[in-house]
Amino acid sequence: MKWWGWGNEEVEFNAQAHPGFWPYARAELGIERDDFTSREWKLEVVELPEPLLDERFLLKLRSFLEPSQISNQSKERVIHAYGKGFRDLFRLRRGLAGGAPDLVVYPESERDVCLTLRAAAECDVMLIPFGGGSNISGCLERTEAGRMSVSLDMRRMRRVLAVDVPSCTARIESGIFGPDLEQQLGAYGVTLGHFPDSFLHSTLGGWIATRSAGMQSDRYGKIEDMVVAVRMVTSEGVLATRTVPKSSNGIDVNHLCIGSEGTLGVITEATMRVHPRPESRLVRGYLFPEFEGGIQAMQECVRQECKPAMVRLNDPDKTALSLAFRPPASRLSNAMGSLFKGYLRIRGLALPRACLMLTAFEGSQAEVAHQLRQTQAIYRRFGAISLGESSGKAFESTKYDFPHIRDYLLDRDVTTDVSETSTVWSKILPLYRDTTALLRATILESGVPPWTGCHISHTYQCGASVYFTFGFRQQPGREMEQYLRVKRAVQQSFIDHGATLSHHHAVGSEHLPWLAADISQLGVQAVAAIKRGLDPGNIMNPGRLQPHPNPFDRWM
Amino acid sequence: MKWWGWGNEEVEFNAQAHPGFWPYARAELGIERDDFTSREWKLEVVELPEPLLDERFLLKLRSFLEPSQISNQSKERVIHAYGKGFRDLFRLRRGLAGGAPDLVVYPESERDVCLTLRAAAECDVMLIPFGGGSNISGCLERTEAGRMSVSLDMRRMRRVLAVDVPSCTARIESGIFGPDLEQQLGAYGVTLGHFPDSFLHSTLGGWIATRSAGMQSDRYGKIEDMVVAVRMVTSEGVLATRTVPKSSNGIDVNHLCIGSEGTLGVITEATMRVHPRPESRLVRGYLFPEFEGGIQAMQECVRQECKPAMVRLNDPDKTALSLAFRPPASRLSNAMGSLFKGYLRIRGLALPRACLMLTAFEGSQAEVAHQLRQTQAIYRRFGAISLGESSGKAFESTKYDFPHIRDYLLDRDVTTDVSETSTVWSKILPLYRDTTALLRATILESGVPPWTGCHISHTYQCGASVYFTFGFRQQPGREMEQYLRVKRAVQQSFIDHGATLSHHHAVGSEHLPWLAADISQLGVQAVAAIKRGLDPGNIMNPGRLQPHPNPFDRWM
Repeated sequence: MKWWGWGNEEVEFNAQAHPGFWPYARAELGIERDDFTSREWKLEVVELPEPLLDERFLLKLRSFLEPSQISNQSKERVIHAYGKGFRDLFRLRRGLAGGAPDLVVYPESERDVCLTLRAAAECDVMLIPFGGGSNISGCLERTEAGRMSVSLDMRRMRRVLAVDVPSCTARIESGIFGPDLEQQLGAYGVTLGHFPDSFLHSTLGGWIATRSAGMQSDRYGKIEDMVVAVRMVTSEGVLATRTVPKSSNGIDVNHLCIGSEGTLGVITEATMRVHPRPESRLVRGYLFPEFEGGIQAMQECVRQECKPAMVRLNDPDKTALSLAFRPPASRLSNAMGSLFKGYLRIRGLALPRACLMLTAFEGSQAEVAHQLRQTQAIYRRFGAISLGESSGKAFESTKYDFPHIRDYLLDRDVTTDVSETSTVWSKILPLYRDTTALLRATILESGVPPWTGCHISHTYQCGASVYFTFGFRQQPGREMEQYLRVKRAVQQSFIDHGATLSHHHAVGSEHLPWLAADISQLGVQAVAAIKRGLDPGNIMNPGRLQPHPNPFDRWM
Repeated sequence: MKWWGWGNEEVEFNAQAHPGFWPYARAELGIERDDFTSREWKLEVVELPEPLLDERFLLKLRSFLEPSQISNQSKERVIHAYGKGFRDLFRLRRGLAGGAPDLVVYPESERDVCLTLRAAAECDVMLIPFGGGSNISGCLERTEAGRMSVSLDMRRMRRVLAVDVPSCTARIESGIFGPDLEQQLGAYGVTLGHFPDSFLHSTLGGWIATRSAGMQSDRYGKIEDMVVAVRMVTSEGVLATRTVPKSSNGIDVNHLCIGSEGTLGVITEATMRVHPRPESRLVRGYLFPEFEGGIQAMQECVRQECKPAMVRLNDPDKTALSLAFRPPASRLSNAMGSLFKGYLRIRGLALPRACLMLTAFEGSQAEVAHQLRQTQAIYRRFGAISLGESSGKAFESTKYDFPHIRDYLLDRDVTTDVSETSTVWSKILPLYRDTTALLRATILESGVPPWTGCHISHTYQCGASVYFTFGFRQQPGREMEQYLRVKRAVQQSFIDHGATLSHHHAVGSEHLPWLAADISQLGVQAVAAIKRGLDPGNIMNPGRLQPHPNPFDRWM
């Protein structure tokens, strides 16, 4: 894994394969230079804090772990210092790793986890559970100094333990990564159906602890809809629930583990709903004459109970980015070049307002055909034209590549990030318009041209997720301040519009100042009460989900 | 409301309309007598404990409530003493009302609730929220003596506050009863889609506090799937969440309120998902040659994503009861009399093994037609024959009447009750067979013939609810002991088979001994931690969701 960017060391953004991207970005962001050279990232430049090692704790660890399960190597400490948000990568690339743990431990069984927690409780050591390390909300760095901090890397607990095929449930260890999980489930002919953008670099435990959503959540639900039972190890014992479809057994304690962001204990395994692998899968692209019509079409699909596995509607700017990102001479490009321009002429519409809608269909062949017909009929009513199969194929082939762009742009002194939320249908457009305007104004205030884009996805009966992407040239020497100002503006706009702090990226450090506004002060107190009950020694990821009384005092 | 039975005073089981029922019950239960006369229930025979009234608390109450909002009348105290379980009605009918509150308060606004909680906290008074009073798991009686106990009857908070029709959400006060709720929502053309057996006599707040399920949960979900946001008043303040479809804001605090059984605070309102009123609704009856095939057909429907709004498969005994319960000369009876017997002859099957499946379809006319075709194709593969429309109509016209039978049988010295659970598809049949055998054996041990029946309903991708009904002649003088022995056997069987203590009837007193086995000891600790955090004075429904260290010590 790269310590300075997204994904594996050998993989990076391939600018040649996307020749339109950089010219587009340069023009949009007002970048005049073009003499950027690729940097070689040397670990030696990273300043690691002197490790604080409690010898009594180490002695205990060595009594039940193999030497290969304990690491204090610099590279491991750096990799486990942060997630992959802008703040994380910006700091690491400048050699700052103050959030690094003093030690990394790799449990291989629930027993390892139990004993590690017990030892940590006895020695007042902090534990931070670590899955794929791909979180972008600041869930992973230590928040306290003066205590030994240990990153608990779960990747070795990666087995599918049992699959009940007739009941469509699977018991799975939490440290398993997306591709491995799907491969092991594939042997039983089933899928979890959870494909977040981070799929290649994130784990089941991470998904559950952060209330993740996959691209196909419209069909398969969000991760919280998939959990049937969990096992979570805490310093007070193991919380374990039963494999039953639904219950009326008081407060649903599954939901104490889901979204707990490592603050209560370590989720060691979960029993998940799985699904027969779909016989057929199809992704199609459509162009809508404008954003509003696209949103109405999405809502009409929900109303008619017509549920494609994925719908993702880009606003005009995100559409332009998608077009710039297209492989050379793709069908989408051709469509844009001729068909769509012709269409526009006929309709008298303006290209800059066109919106790309990507839609995936899954199920039996008959079902997919039925969904396709029904969806297209609705889309047509709102003026959409189909771009055929190739635009869908282009999306499928590059869908996990997008996060690499940030590294490429960071190399070019450009800050990019995302902020996403969800709201009810009646509030989506005002939220979109006001937040876009505020984002652009806030970026402009820092003296650089803004780029913002938005997509609507993850539809529900009562609303959808609204996902903003933004980018701008960095103000030299004030990069972090500039970023935080923009981030704060967009998050505040979500809350001011009645929306939530995040639809699927978790609270972490970045969204913590808005937690009390989102779940109410008493909600925060309730979470703190659970924390006191299950982690009385405050050894699990301290500081998470507990806003500071002056919320922005420790925000950065 | 009756204090001695189910529902309103003027409504009772109409034996004339169901002439086959009593002969069937007599024969099955081995009842020789037939000289039962209807009793007149005189409130005066009920022994109410001397009310413990804290004058300081009363003074506070009177400072913000109208006199009409406070009652210490005997009738009100008796009605608020218990729910409607066997234990509840058996005790009341014998004049025992030890669980009665000292006072009943009727809040009319969230402010009334807040001030009542504050006063209670200041005076160490217990509060027990009360909706329709129809709970059958023992959620409503006081569990402590020596402190003043107040029943907080929510029925006056019964407004639909706002409906966002395009987003399909409705903000609703918690004290509203089912029919009132549907009527008010009807003005907006929407429905909540929540129709539990108790629909006529239960409230939104009660449904949420107990994780209720309606008959059409297959289509609309269980109540926990319908809650978008809640407001819950606690002695520490108001917990309030946002009207957003989904979030990643840490632990989902909605789920601390859902299922809290009145132990944390008072749910004053909730924002619920609602649905356009279905254009069309159809209920049909089918007969399956045997239970196993019916279950397989249900599972196949789920697998094919063919989801009728309701499916309810009776086992052979429950089928026989349904036939006995039929109105005279109904189509079902005719079908049984001729068509089905003919069918049996052809197939060589035995009538005693036949199973009635009731299935409801809802949606647009096209959708209903499609569902009906798809479902019937599946049912036919498992040997089912359709009983046509009249069996469905018979079900529709009597669906809320069933609970009245218990009163009728109690009048005849017969104990009846229900226990229900849920489990995964692969475990349904073993659970059904073993629990039925155990139930019958346990009843037989008390020297009387057993009647047991079961139905499978509320299907999910991974399983379904399994619902047992049982009845037997009372052992004079040992009625409660006899009941508890049977109840304990069936609940223990659920837990031994990996199932849950209840699918939709709540924990209450009756299921409390199995809570730790169900959600683990640490789950119980977690719930206790939330309780300490939100209700430090332990004023809200004390004793609920907190099992005794020796779980059966206080069980009765």
